[in-house]
Amino acid sequence: MMTLFYAPHTCSLASHIALEDAGADYTTVRISFANDEQRKPEYLAINPKARVPALVTGRGTLTETPAMLAFIAQSFPLKRLAPLDDPYLFARVQAFNSYLCATLHVAHSHRMRGYRWADEASAIEAMQRKVPQSVASCYELIEATMLEEPWVMGEVYTICDPYLFTLAQWLEQDGVDPRRFPKVIDHRRRMSERPEVQRAIAEELA
Amino acid sequence: MMTLFYAPHTCSLASHIALEDAGADYTTVRISFANDEQRKPEYLAINPKARVPALVTGRGTLTETPAMLAFIAQSFPLKRLAPLDDPYLFARVQAFNSYLCATLHVAHSHRMRGYRWADEASAIEAMQRKVPQSVASCYELIEATMLEEPWVMGEVYTICDPYLFTLAQWLEQDGVDPRRFPKVIDHRRRMSERPEVQRAIAEELA
Repeated sequence: MMTLFYAPHTCSLASHIALEDAGADYTTVRISFANDEQRKPEYLAINPKARVPALVTGRGTLTETPAMLAFIAQSFPLKRLAPLDDPYLFARVQAFNSYLCATLHVAHSHRMRGYRWADEASAIEAMQRKVPQSVASCYELIEATMLEEPWVMGEVYTICDPYLFTLAQWLEQDGVDPRRFPKVIDHRRRMSERPEVQRAIAEELA
Repeated sequence: MMTLFYAPHTCSLASHIALEDAGADYTTVRISFANDEQRKPEYLAINPKARVPALVTGRGTLTETPAMLAFIAQSFPLKRLAPLDDPYLFARVQAFNSYLCATLHVAHSHRMRGYRWADEASAIEAMQRKVPQSVASCYELIEATMLEEPWVMGEVYTICDPYLFTLAQWLEQDGVDPRRFPKVIDHRRRMSERPEVQRAIAEELA
């Protein structure tokens, strides 16, 4: 039995969906950012990074979405959520997820979490102004060079799909015109029709 | 035969060291940032992200350091550069590398590449002022909660080690006092004594 610590409207949804995709035996614990629960001692004992997601396993706690997604795929190999027997294709999956984590999500974070990288209010506002452009430039690259169809890696659904879907939830709020990225929006719609996705979202918003 | 596209003083050193660790058959191509070669059509055809590193394999091009490091480990399993047979331990390795990629490296990037996230000069300067603090807070977490000894994962050397070593090259330039992080500095020294590390650095600086 695993326990996923998550917060609604964050990247933890990606791991939540993957746990559903895997048919894993798991429970969830909601962390309230409004109450700053992620910085309280009880949670810091679980994840000293003071962030979500965290996945408590029988052996210890895992963090970082790309690592957790690969762990879920490797723990349920019969579900074929990643090309586990092919190091090159597995690296393609990982490269996509690493880009989402370190470039797209980071660009997005400058809208709400600019205080991580500057103290002055004017600088934080300057970061917010650039988010529509910096996030859109990530989606340009994804749309033009990374996203196959119907799924990110082509015919086969992988752990890339819940991660892209999760970050693509924020596209409009980041000031990006979705009409510029028809493949991304198509993918988002296709994902939203999956029962596993619907179950994870329903639980997070309940 | 693989080809690593790299630039000196960047995170591509991590993959370069790992290729040496693996005893891989590879060549390197230096990309001159001074000449903006990473944005020229020849290079964009290889890596449309306009960044290093990129690893051209017989099957296609890989990018993103965490994905490349895992690929190298999986391609040379007898070198045991990652715990490939244990999904939990492998996820621990990946979580460490993902943290370096998406948090530590990103904090560092606000010193030289603030233009990615804001346009105004005053905002870019504000980001630069916060780098000593934001980078140090990453090293606090690494020193206190992540870095075993003698290697990142403990007794066994893994693909975490060249990555931490590479980013720890920048500690002083980022305005962080190395005396605050004795384990990180010890690890950096220990790494610098390895012939594989010395060969990769010598080639990059030749």
